[in-house]
Amino acid sequence: MTPISKKVGVLGAGQLGRMLALAGYPLAQKFAFYGVSEDEPSALLGHMHMHSDEADNLKQLVDFADVITYESENTDVEMVREIAKTTPVYPGEKSLYVSQHRGREKNLLTDLGIPCAPFEVVDSLESLHNAVQKIGLPAVLKTTTEGYDGKGQAVLKSEDQVEKAWQQLGERELILEGFVDFARELSIIAVRNAHNEHVYYPLMQNVHHEGILRYTIAPARQISEDVQKQAEEYMHKLLDELDHVGVLTLELFETEDGLVANEMAPRVHNSGHWTIEGAETSQFENHVRAICGLPLGSTQPKQPLAAMVNIIGETGPVEEVLKMPKAHLHLYDKAERTGRKLGHINLMAENEDELYQMMQQLSAFLPQ
Amino acid sequence: MTPISKKVGVLGAGQLGRMLALAGYPLAQKFAFYGVSEDEPSALLGHMHMHSDEADNLKQLVDFADVITYESENTDVEMVREIAKTTPVYPGEKSLYVSQHRGREKNLLTDLGIPCAPFEVVDSLESLHNAVQKIGLPAVLKTTTEGYDGKGQAVLKSEDQVEKAWQQLGERELILEGFVDFARELSIIAVRNAHNEHVYYPLMQNVHHEGILRYTIAPARQISEDVQKQAEEYMHKLLDELDHVGVLTLELFETEDGLVANEMAPRVHNSGHWTIEGAETSQFENHVRAICGLPLGSTQPKQPLAAMVNIIGETGPVEEVLKMPKAHLHLYDKAERTGRKLGHINLMAENEDELYQMMQQLSAFLPQ
Repeated sequence: MTPISKKVGVLGAGQLGRMLALAGYPLAQKFAFYGVSEDEPSALLGHMHMHSDEADNLKQLVDFADVITYESENTDVEMVREIAKTTPVYPGEKSLYVSQHRGREKNLLTDLGIPCAPFEVVDSLESLHNAVQKIGLPAVLKTTTEGYDGKGQAVLKSEDQVEKAWQQLGERELILEGFVDFARELSIIAVRNAHNEHVYYPLMQNVHHEGILRYTIAPARQISEDVQKQAEEYMHKLLDELDHVGVLTLELFETEDGLVANEMAPRVHNSGHWTIEGAETSQFENHVRAICGLPLGSTQPKQPLAAMVNIIGETGPVEEVLKMPKAHLHLYDKAERTGRKLGHINLMAENEDELYQMMQQLSAFLPQ
Repeated sequence: MTPISKKVGVLGAGQLGRMLALAGYPLAQKFAFYGVSEDEPSALLGHMHMHSDEADNLKQLVDFADVITYESENTDVEMVREIAKTTPVYPGEKSLYVSQHRGREKNLLTDLGIPCAPFEVVDSLESLHNAVQKIGLPAVLKTTTEGYDGKGQAVLKSEDQVEKAWQQLGERELILEGFVDFARELSIIAVRNAHNEHVYYPLMQNVHHEGILRYTIAPARQISEDVQKQAEEYMHKLLDELDHVGVLTLELFETEDGLVANEMAPRVHNSGHWTIEGAETSQFENHVRAICGLPLGSTQPKQPLAAMVNIIGETGPVEEVLKMPKAHLHLYDKAERTGRKLGHINLMAENEDELYQMMQQLSAFLPQ
């Protein structure tokens, strides 16, 4: 109806799809989702097409859509390749193919001269033993695909843990990564549209607990201009090499020798949720702008300091959050379950003292 | 699913319902709408129940909902009374009944000691002539009900215009209001929840053209603390007298003798659209909080100065708006039509100079 209006099909119907839709409707974009249940977070925010044995429902989504995007790097590449024959899929197949496999990802990083931990892909106990010899211990053994929130990982500290870890992680293709001695975990979010505009959000500082992101501080404290510029250069290389359209996230370690890349995600990212109120344009709006061929928006933070606190497992005392003047509640309307991301709280502050006080008020949501 | 989650039924499916839903989903509220067409702005943002000869569709909405609200003061009071027998409707029947009739509204204002123009309700040419004698000219003749965006009004400057105006406005019940000599048009938005919490947004300055709001400056410039306090006192009286739950808006004239009330609306208001990015909590989120029994959020502006520019009739060069760093586009996805509100643009500024420059960049959207 409206000149810039497009129909966006999302593969997935979780909280990321939900927040994409909430950001996209004000730009007159329309949404449809490909999900598994009417209870999913996106289900009420557009047309809902269900997975089923029949291919019809996916076809309906594709027929509806001017452009297709996805929520997860674990999206089936074959499916995306098939869809792309008739309808643009952003980010494209290459971004998806690379980022859903830790081996391919690290090969690309290495090819582009982006520092990352030494690594070896292994497919047998014997090759794992060889890799341990080469890389040394401690090291981290991970599945090459489908790991998230710390699942599918084991830290190896001594040779006698190798066989057990191999058995535990499923006797399938794994990757052994050298241990990185880091000061902080950081991430950066970049956006590129098909007109080759690039924008970058400031580096963010992430704190994990038991493998799950618990909170993010944005911008990360005490980051020099050079380090921010270095991170942006890495992202620029990745965006161009992948011919990426949409949001791309890179997790990084801050070490004594500079930034070391950990892993990337071809999508909006939990560490960027603070941008909903905290940046001039949120990561969600910029992803929608990018995939719909619109000009990208400013990534400037609106205040000196922001934080994002995840709500994990239990919804908790959210009415108390509503009483905090500069806190913003974002619930995904999901059932409680141990370790599950149910929502997040964005905090806006003028300085570290104010932020620290607000974080203390939210202690019920933070790991003790 | 989530502890604070409620199901909200909205009578109407226009842009106000759309923006209520966009603000409500992050608080885990679910939405359904009672509308006339699948093309309406809210249609994709929840369950859509259509008006039809059968009462079944309204019943479905009511059965779904934990609480019902409405988009327009022209909502049928009888319908609301019927619904309220089984499901809470906020704002309540009294707020609706009073604000859909200019005579009842001005009687209430007068009873509460809130200044307004002298007025007479008339139902014949003879009583209109008597009212003209009593109030004097110039004066404004209006329909008592259903007028909006300057429709259903005539300015009377001389006796010989009286008969023609009576004929033009439909020979039905009208109200004659004394002409108010005002410096500026202002409005104030207040919110009350069922726990009797009250919050107030700052006075806003509104500029109309041909009866339609074209832009709002928020906060209004050069408003003394006393004037803000006066406006809040008026709102407090209205909220309490009406036992109002939800957002209430009052349009005011700024005159040499102080504030003079013009008209009220028991709902979120076009002059409050700047609050989406401009205030800590938007009018939409606060309306949802109020009707769902949640604590109200801070009404503090996030920046020194904001403006809201309406997009009227034609969508216009909206891609240019997307390039402006501190402008936020809100389209309602409606077909273009003369005089129709299609969207709005929120501008955030540090000072008047910056705002003025941004307004100049938006000259295509402003009346010449």
